[in-house]
Amino acid sequence: MSEGEVKVLGTWASPFSTRVRIALHLKSVNYDYLEEKSLESKSELLLDSNPVFKRIPVLIHGDNKPISESLIIVEYIDEVWSSGPSILPCDAYQRADARFWATYVDDKFYPALKRAVVSGSEETKRASMAEVEEGVAMLEKLSKGEAFFGGYNIGYLDIVIGSVFEWIKVIDKCNETQLLSQAETPCLLEWGARFSHEAVKDVLPGVAKLAGFGLKLKAKI
Amino acid sequence: MSEGEVKVLGTWASPFSTRVRIALHLKSVNYDYLEEKSLESKSELLLDSNPVFKRIPVLIHGDNKPISESLIIVEYIDEVWSSGPSILPCDAYQRADARFWATYVDDKFYPALKRAVVSGSEETKRASMAEVEEGVAMLEKLSKGEAFFGGYNIGYLDIVIGSVFEWIKVIDKCNETQLLSQAETPCLLEWGARFSHEAVKDVLPGVAKLAGFGLKLKAKI
Repeated sequence: MSEGEVKVLGTWASPFSTRVRIALHLKSVNYDYLEEKSLESKSELLLDSNPVFKRIPVLIHGDNKPISESLIIVEYIDEVWSSGPSILPCDAYQRADARFWATYVDDKFYPALKRAVVSGSEETKRASMAEVEEGVAMLEKLSKGEAFFGGYNIGYLDIVIGSVFEWIKVIDKCNETQLLSQAETPCLLEWGARFSHEAVKDVLPGVAKLAGFGLKLKAKI
Repeated sequence: MSEGEVKVLGTWASPFSTRVRIALHLKSVNYDYLEEKSLESKSELLLDSNPVFKRIPVLIHGDNKPISESLIIVEYIDEVWSSGPSILPCDAYQRADARFWATYVDDKFYPALKRAVVSGSEETKRASMAEVEEGVAMLEKLSKGEAFFGGYNIGYLDIVIGSVFEWIKVIDKCNETQLLSQAETPCLLEWGARFSHEAVKDVLPGVAKLAGFGLKLKAKI
């Protein structure tokens, strides 16, 4: 089941690629990472692999048809390389809860984070910052108690939140805000430090590089 | 694990509510169905149960915190009432594939179906119809071979596609098109007939009622 070569198509700045790579690192799976050079001119391999959405990330595993959509890929990795540490919680209710917060991150929180950095409209920026502040407060509350969102170890929700976490720091850097602080978000800051674990640190883009990317994107828009 | 009262908050016209109810019916779970009367004035119970998105469907199971998001609820139902027929495919790759097509239905196909009915702009309608036609052709291809998308029995993807299938018929009725026909979509039509299975037929809104709802929505917009 877990045999065959593994390839990931992604881009370095995409949190969706990052989470796939983190999951593979946690499971100690060797893979080839193929960086998509340009979003304007997509590779043949990407277009062939995901003709429906034409977007990264894509996981190619052995002779199977390629798999798309980051959350689906992370679940696939967890199920196929089941001998490694478990990514999804064991309990059905906790699994549903983790999936819910992942949906929140993808549908609301990350789009707001990105708009807060790249939007040129002051009104959009203000509305997005309100959403981001609300989101950061919710995540602070969620991060209380255990070492990770997944409990003792990095799990599904850690991967999802961890893949967008540096964007919060990018906002603090670019907009001179203090979304993250010892006074307001002590647990989230501690979690962030723990998350910079050896399995994930090489995959995270880094705040400075990501801020540069955000500013370039803003100039383009 | 599967003990405790079950309640579903939903609306009759929402495919997202419908899929939760179909999953419960397939598992022979008794539940109370609470219809949200108005999207403008949401019930206290809904706002308390899903404060993040404030939307249906919501599943309340025993003393657990309520669960939101239809696809997450369907997976939860499958995992908790594991003694009933399996909803998700057993194979990890097939599970990923089913989840991918479910994402396609929710992110692209259903929004296009709805726009094709309710949009007042001819341009939007034309573009949406092109997306719908492409989607119907893909689903026809997917439905070839086995009795159901899930194989011998109704499964995850049957529930997801089945919950929006009547919208295709609504378009054919309202726009006088022939998206579904014996010549072009014989497999999808056969699948639709098989899908009207006793476990699901009482939950589907029916084409006439749904068309009336769509036209009302159009007039409102």
